[in-house]
Amino acid sequence: MIPGPFLLYLGHSDDEVGIKTSRGLAIFRTGDCVGEWRHDDCPLTLGLPLLAPAAARAAGARTLVLGIANAGGTLGEPLVRDAIAAIEAGLNVASGLHHRLRDEPRLVRAAKQAGVALFDVRDAPKDLPVGNGKPRAGNRLLTVGTDCSVGKMYATLALHAALRRRGIAADFRATGQTGILIAGAGVPLDAVVADFISGAIEMLAPARTDDGWDLIEGQGSLFHPSFAGVSTGLLHGAQPRAILLCHDPSRPHMRGLPHFRLPDLAECLAANLAVARLTSPDVLPVGVALNTVKLDEAAAHRLCADTGTALGMPCTDPFRFGADPFVDRMLQCFAPSPPPISASA
Amino acid sequence: MIPGPFLLYLGHSDDEVGIKTSRGLAIFRTGDCVGEWRHDDCPLTLGLPLLAPAAARAAGARTLVLGIANAGGTLGEPLVRDAIAAIEAGLNVASGLHHRLRDEPRLVRAAKQAGVALFDVRDAPKDLPVGNGKPRAGNRLLTVGTDCSVGKMYATLALHAALRRRGIAADFRATGQTGILIAGAGVPLDAVVADFISGAIEMLAPARTDDGWDLIEGQGSLFHPSFAGVSTGLLHGAQPRAILLCHDPSRPHMRGLPHFRLPDLAECLAANLAVARLTSPDVLPVGVALNTVKLDEAAAHRLCADTGTALGMPCTDPFRFGADPFVDRMLQCFAPSPPPISASA
Repeated sequence: MIPGPFLLYLGHSDDEVGIKTSRGLAIFRTGDCVGEWRHDDCPLTLGLPLLAPAAARAAGARTLVLGIANAGGTLGEPLVRDAIAAIEAGLNVASGLHHRLRDEPRLVRAAKQAGVALFDVRDAPKDLPVGNGKPRAGNRLLTVGTDCSVGKMYATLALHAALRRRGIAADFRATGQTGILIAGAGVPLDAVVADFISGAIEMLAPARTDDGWDLIEGQGSLFHPSFAGVSTGLLHGAQPRAILLCHDPSRPHMRGLPHFRLPDLAECLAANLAVARLTSPDVLPVGVALNTVKLDEAAAHRLCADTGTALGMPCTDPFRFGADPFVDRMLQCFAPSPPPISASA
Repeated sequence: MIPGPFLLYLGHSDDEVGIKTSRGLAIFRTGDCVGEWRHDDCPLTLGLPLLAPAAARAAGARTLVLGIANAGGTLGEPLVRDAIAAIEAGLNVASGLHHRLRDEPRLVRAAKQAGVALFDVRDAPKDLPVGNGKPRAGNRLLTVGTDCSVGKMYATLALHAALRRRGIAADFRATGQTGILIAGAGVPLDAVVADFISGAIEMLAPARTDDGWDLIEGQGSLFHPSFAGVSTGLLHGAQPRAILLCHDPSRPHMRGLPHFRLPDLAECLAANLAVARLTSPDVLPVGVALNTVKLDEAAAHRLCADTGTALGMPCTDPFRFGADPFVDRMLQCFAPSPPPISASA
């Protein structure tokens, strides 16, 4: 477990997409973030107090989160220097970069001297099992998508919040760097060797015997030719009772691939259900989550209503408008098991 | 490239499945195998002369192939001792075991002293690209299966031989340890991180502009809940013009999973075509390859005939009876491009 509260790193970033991990923590772990650390050339902000490491430590921060992505996921010289400054101020350092903190001797040495820890969240667990597909107890929902980066993590976390507000037990099961930093646990699927994808998810979301839900963060898309293998293994390992389809209506083509069209929503839903049925024959869709950030509120509501009508299921932007329509559908489709009948009844 | 001729290791093995890599080399690279090395307690044979390392070296062997699998893929003490003996006799050592030769200091030291090389064929190439699904030129066929270990490699190699006998250029593209040792090149898919499966296959079978064929060794099955992600990435990366469905009619359930039934052949074919169409919209099936090793010849012929009739395509056991029916179908479906028309015609 990575100790909070956090100081979120923006550094010299000038690209909104590049700071998505820091932003994810600012949004979903607001209470655990004491400030942001950015340099004068960084035009971005998370709306948190600007704090250098020593001031952040004094304000209670325990860990600097390097929540940025740069080309190649490397630890550049400015990043290493800043991380050392944070370590010397008494902060742990956490990173989801491809290049591991522990592979940089200067960081290892500095952390040892200062008595703080380095956290590489992109490390896959050792000794992952091969998936076995055996039916296991419990309610599991998996978010699936028409494409990569359409809002699966945001939808999963919004649903998590909505379920908890209704008093329903729910756990967010993270499969990507940002999700893992938010949850404090998870499996970084993009570091798992192909033979172990479904096994990793079986381990991440094991049998549960209460009426609560495991909400599993999806990755990729069955229609993305780079990553459909990952999405397939996720569906089989998740053994979901429910899937929630996520979509970004502003996406002109598959991410990074101008030669690939987006799938039709009904087609995408049918394909996901067909693959999911191998390990979860009774899987049901509970709705469509749209990422409407580029639409004004009226247009967003209209698109959600039209999409829901066309597909015959709840449709909303769960991050913008709340995930209650999905919760309602889940309660309707998956009634909690009745209390056991006592022998004397 | 691993230098032949080979000495094939059986060691103390007493399990036919455990020596499948040595057997694969004995069958498909017969002319490059000078002998087998087994101890007195090994009841198995490949039908090759029994040779200890020094005698094998004298007979021209260049490399000892540790073509056996043991529980966990580890290098046990007897294996290490035997490998050192081979090195001291002047042989290189090649292995597809999970535990790498280069991680055993005694082997590294001995090989350095003797001036020979160690080959770990399970190493994935560095810097694999992410797949892009861009249409690329060339004829590619992928073997797909109802299950794991139903004979995809044998079918691919039998087809390779049949095409070459007809004077058609063909390359076998290996994706597993045994295939890589047979081909002398390939990508060990089970060591590739999930995000790079389709990219690895795009690299393994790049665009080709002759009328020849890349024959890609399939892995797993879309219906095997442990490995369907790998099979999906393979289909997308291969971008196959043709698929050949492989099946073992004696298999009672999915390998290792008594709770999973085998898919119906037509259902399996349809699912593979649907997934393949994402990157290869015009993909065609060219036949069904049955592994009939457990049937007598008459029963095998009958089953092939019945299966072919039911599915409306060629069906045979290509390893037992030759792959010519598939070659005929490929020539029929994919006529070679006509010679360019000269301007004066």
